[in-house]
Amino acid sequence: MNYLKKVVLVIFCAFFSLAVMAQTHPSLMLTKANVVAVRKGVATYPLLRQSYQTVKNVADKALAAPIIVPVPKDGGGGYTHEAHKKNYSNMLSAATAYQISGEKKYADYVKNVLLNYASQYQKWPLHPKSKNKADAGRIFWQCLNDFVWQIYTIQAYDLVYDALPASDRKTIETQLFAPILKFFTEDKREVFDKIHNHGTWNLAAVGISGYVLNKKEYVETAIKGSKKDGKTGYLAQIDQLFSPDGYYMEGPYYQRYALLPFVLFAKAINNYEPSRKIFEYRDKLLAKAIQTSLQTSYTDKTFFPINDAIKDKTYESIELVYGVDLAYADIKPEVDLLDIARQQGRVIVSDAGLKVAKDLAAGKAVPFKYQTLFIKDGAKGEDGGLGILRNGPNTDQQAVLLKAGSQGMGHGHFDRLNLLFYDNTTEIFPDYGSARFHNIDTKNGGGYLPENNTWAKQTVAHNALVVDQTSHFNGELAPADATSPSLLYFSNQPNLKVVSAKEAEAYADVTMVRTVATVKVDGLEKPLIIDVVQGLSANQHQYDLPFWYQGQLVNTSFPVSATTDGLKALGTENGYQHIWLNASNKLQNNTGLVGLITKNRFYTTHFASSNPLEIKLVTIGANDPEMNLVHSKAFMLRSSGSNQTFVSIVETHGEKDPVDETVTGAQASVSDVRILNSDEKQTAISFMLNGKTHNYQINYTDKQNYVYFR
Amino acid sequence: MNYLKKVVLVIFCAFFSLAVMAQTHPSLMLTKANVVAVRKGVATYPLLRQSYQTVKNVADKALAAPIIVPVPKDGGGGYTHEAHKKNYSNMLSAATAYQISGEKKYADYVKNVLLNYASQYQKWPLHPKSKNKADAGRIFWQCLNDFVWQIYTIQAYDLVYDALPASDRKTIETQLFAPILKFFTEDKREVFDKIHNHGTWNLAAVGISGYVLNKKEYVETAIKGSKKDGKTGYLAQIDQLFSPDGYYMEGPYYQRYALLPFVLFAKAINNYEPSRKIFEYRDKLLAKAIQTSLQTSYTDKTFFPINDAIKDKTYESIELVYGVDLAYADIKPEVDLLDIARQQGRVIVSDAGLKVAKDLAAGKAVPFKYQTLFIKDGAKGEDGGLGILRNGPNTDQQAVLLKAGSQGMGHGHFDRLNLLFYDNTTEIFPDYGSARFHNIDTKNGGGYLPENNTWAKQTVAHNALVVDQTSHFNGELAPADATSPSLLYFSNQPNLKVVSAKEAEAYADVTMVRTVATVKVDGLEKPLIIDVVQGLSANQHQYDLPFWYQGQLVNTSFPVSATTDGLKALGTENGYQHIWLNASNKLQNNTGLVGLITKNRFYTTHFASSNPLEIKLVTIGANDPEMNLVHSKAFMLRSSGSNQTFVSIVETHGEKDPVDETVTGAQASVSDVRILNSDEKQTAISFMLNGKTHNYQINYTDKQNYVYFR
Repeated sequence: MNYLKKVVLVIFCAFFSLAVMAQTHPSLMLTKANVVAVRKGVATYPLLRQSYQTVKNVADKALAAPIIVPVPKDGGGGYTHEAHKKNYSNMLSAATAYQISGEKKYADYVKNVLLNYASQYQKWPLHPKSKNKADAGRIFWQCLNDFVWQIYTIQAYDLVYDALPASDRKTIETQLFAPILKFFTEDKREVFDKIHNHGTWNLAAVGISGYVLNKKEYVETAIKGSKKDGKTGYLAQIDQLFSPDGYYMEGPYYQRYALLPFVLFAKAINNYEPSRKIFEYRDKLLAKAIQTSLQTSYTDKTFFPINDAIKDKTYESIELVYGVDLAYADIKPEVDLLDIARQQGRVIVSDAGLKVAKDLAAGKAVPFKYQTLFIKDGAKGEDGGLGILRNGPNTDQQAVLLKAGSQGMGHGHFDRLNLLFYDNTTEIFPDYGSARFHNIDTKNGGGYLPENNTWAKQTVAHNALVVDQTSHFNGELAPADATSPSLLYFSNQPNLKVVSAKEAEAYADVTMVRTVATVKVDGLEKPLIIDVVQGLSANQHQYDLPFWYQGQLVNTSFPVSATTDGLKALGTENGYQHIWLNASNKLQNNTGLVGLITKNRFYTTHFASSNPLEIKLVTIGANDPEMNLVHSKAFMLRSSGSNQTFVSIVETHGEKDPVDETVTGAQASVSDVRILNSDEKQTAISFMLNGKTHNYQINYTDKQNYVYFR
Repeated sequence: MNYLKKVVLVIFCAFFSLAVMAQTHPSLMLTKANVVAVRKGVATYPLLRQSYQTVKNVADKALAAPIIVPVPKDGGGGYTHEAHKKNYSNMLSAATAYQISGEKKYADYVKNVLLNYASQYQKWPLHPKSKNKADAGRIFWQCLNDFVWQIYTIQAYDLVYDALPASDRKTIETQLFAPILKFFTEDKREVFDKIHNHGTWNLAAVGISGYVLNKKEYVETAIKGSKKDGKTGYLAQIDQLFSPDGYYMEGPYYQRYALLPFVLFAKAINNYEPSRKIFEYRDKLLAKAIQTSLQTSYTDKTFFPINDAIKDKTYESIELVYGVDLAYADIKPEVDLLDIARQQGRVIVSDAGLKVAKDLAAGKAVPFKYQTLFIKDGAKGEDGGLGILRNGPNTDQQAVLLKAGSQGMGHGHFDRLNLLFYDNTTEIFPDYGSARFHNIDTKNGGGYLPENNTWAKQTVAHNALVVDQTSHFNGELAPADATSPSLLYFSNQPNLKVVSAKEAEAYADVTMVRTVATVKVDGLEKPLIIDVVQGLSANQHQYDLPFWYQGQLVNTSFPVSATTDGLKALGTENGYQHIWLNASNKLQNNTGLVGLITKNRFYTTHFASSNPLEIKLVTIGANDPEMNLVHSKAFMLRSSGSNQTFVSIVETHGEKDPVDETVTGAQASVSDVRILNSDEKQTAISFMLNGKTHNYQINYTDKQNYVYFR
């Protein structure tokens, strides 16, 4: 250990000598020049006052309790894990309280915690609960958490720097930060140079620390990679991890998480080296990433839970508080961002938070501008993307998502052309998200459950087409990561919004095409959703199209005759082993309807099939010995043939007023849904509505007249 | 028909000649003397302004649409049903708008609707959808709805009376109200004289109409019964339908509904004949009934859903708006009622609403005072009751209900000593309520589903003790209605709240005793709930104690090994046929625990049994061919013996912060729950908490030292 210490010191001093920048503290989210203004803002603007009060409460609670820096022992959610998380959060709160209140006790607290870590850190080996050496941290079971720890802690250090005696600073820098940075850049070099969000956290921690500790060498490697050749490092991460639209391939839940190190490091770069114009980099990519993060949320504040998402995550999350504050204050003051800030209910006590709180107090906010758009995926924007169709005001928005993006690596699900539907501030056709009780130790240590692979990732767990009861790409990651769906058409007209995409690789001999449109029709309050799913093949296949739904089934065009005893699983693998088959019906004329009531509103799905049609009513829970799965239910359309087309028209209608006990508009209006023809070139359907026949046509080969509706 | 018309006219004129009271209009909720003040109040007090705006919006919408008075045809939730409901609501809104705005167009609307009804009513036979002659209405399938229609309509008539030409009044009174009142008092005399809430609606409609139409004879019969002997009628209903504590035996959902005719008629009596001192009647019974209605709700605004309740019903319901306004303005201005009014978000545009809105605007509201109390059931207060234990502020209240009241007639469930548990503004151990999709025509016409009898009413559907897989009283109403549980003990100390009750008749040879306590213990944020359930018998029995729960199962002291395929029903009758048996475990040492996470908080139930213990994890849905049942799940304790005691200690702990993704206090603290002894005289248990042994003792025969805790 003594030898190690020496090596660290030597390296540290070497880096020290390279220092060239003038040092002012603090210089990150809160800057010395702005402290007085922020203090005044805390006294003046409600949201900043509230936000500071929360920070101060955390700080005061921390100061009232003994400092505990336990030897790392527990995995995610466990005691030492939570204690170390609490420490960095406490330090940042106390350090902020120091700057705003000027009370030295807060700085002393940070100093004492840091000195405690400094006295122990070098004795800690790799974390005993780590799963493998590559991912192992020292404070936490995953090094990712160590990176996060450092990002918070270095900010705290920057805030209290001037209040600390030089001797303590030296102890902290040489015995804690130096070995940490060595650990990050040397032991974790592979992660440091990996184009992956773990890499971003690592290099952002290193880069920000480099600025604060005046170690330019660390900044350089963070920005340009350990070889300083730009092939890895921060800029390479911006180039490769995001699409030109600012979309992060793992999906919104991870995008939100990945965002924080990007924006924090950007802010540091911008403060220390404004000449780098980091916010302008790649056509304002970071601003787009923040915007896209918000555009991949629904009006209930949650992110679209595609891939391994934790479903209750919202844009109230701290990463987006940073993101929104910085986007507004440092990049472009779009006033609809203030609406998000208001809903977040907090700002960062910082230069940016001041500006946001001030403008909110001045009444500048307008409702957030949710858009209908196609968000391109892939570093070059060539890997498909997400089609999002929205209608109505934020207070009662209809949103439809077509997932036509890339696999998104290990957290991706096998759900090409998956459809999500939201309305009335709730999920109607949801995605399961991940099978995980995050941070709950008694459920597999808070990690992913076995059912994340056997269920959540499988195609049938989604509102996606399943061929022959197998998952897309046979559930194999490598081929799935290799290709992406392609966008066929996107259009955003007030009365007709359309997204159409194709997936030709998920199955050996089946091409899937899904075209989703929202259509405003006279006499209906909400647009109809017309969903046309094709499976095109030269060979015979079985096609399943599940619609997982929220709410209660209250209407069917067919007599439901559910299994009364001896409930059986629908299959044996690919997720089907988890499905209980409750009821099954062959449908006359290949059409039918299913009516739901969800959050006091009615949703009737009218469907038709080009081949003989069966409907299955299902729930999950089979082959789940530990009862890990969360109750879910679906109606599943099943048909067989070579070419197959499913048409579904979702009608939103009526409501139940539970307080007044009245029901209106319970009856659906659409009827007689017919597939007139459907092949590779065209799908034409008709339906009746209020005595009138409507026609809807998709011309797959004619981009000029792709969709026709009358 | 002509003959009928003549008879009606003769009777009507006969009554007319008896009129003695001076007539002023309006004289009900809104009185002529107060109109100017209420108009001013509408301009001044936010809640009154808002409430009027809502009323006016309804009125304006009504005026903009054609008047439709369809020939009655459809059942509950159907087109004509909803149209006639809308008409009375529209009339009352328009009539109110007339008084406040002074605009005659509103009065004309009411006149035109009434004239339309007057032109048709006498042609309408009994409703074609009525199930039997006794219940049949003419406007609606159930006469109950006709009574309600008249109560709303007569108020509207009173409000526009002065604006109507005498000739139109004559038409309306002779061709509409006269035949309606004849129908109510003669054709529906049996209902009129029935001590039941349908009777209350009938006589209140008749009585209020009597006042407004100046037909004292109708008032007299309404108050004293058709024979005017006081054996039936309004006062008899007050005497017999409520307990001395103001509890209505059918339960909170029906209490709320039953309340409206009581308070509306009381208000009319008070206005027209204040000398009757109706609000003072039976020791201010009506005020108690309103208060009890609120005390049988939880802080999420819903009523405790015992018996055939519709679960989403809240005290925002119009009946309670009337109730709260009148209680505050006409009976006693308890300022905590203003808190309820504020949450209701509306007042009646009336004399009472003015007072409430004014005092709310003056900042007089304090949080509603939820109490820990035992609410006596039965006309004489001798039929058991509801024990309600509450802890904590309204913003985060723990509430436990022990249902130890009477059966409550046909809407009663067979759930003696049922336990409900609420916390964190949500249900933790819920009641299923009724099996019904209220007013949704496609689900059995909106009426009760078959599963209301086969499931919802059965004992096993509740958190109640089931002996030998049979329901209490074998699910038979007559014997159940004949007896009630008895209260053994009730105590309300700050740190120890207890309710204990006995049910000796539900099973032939088993006496059930349940004692529920909330116990504050140092070191725990929330009180522990200690639940001791005994089955006492000379003979061997199987005892099942289910805990239906909300949330996700995240911890068990035993390995869960759920059935993976071929799920089987747990039984064949008494509700057991609807239960899927997911998993079953024999427990070592007759103890164990089950941990839940519900709305981001942890609940661990530690249990112990005096006999060998099995636990079953179950869900419902078996033998439900039409998939009528709403997903529910439970853990069920099972044991066999002669005397049996189940002890359950529910510990509330920790939380998950989904925004910050942190989990704290996930580990329960209680351990080593032991039953030291348990018989007819005493139950003694011990458990460990934070290194200390606690003892809890119930002395069933010693009222002075009934419960001991240390």
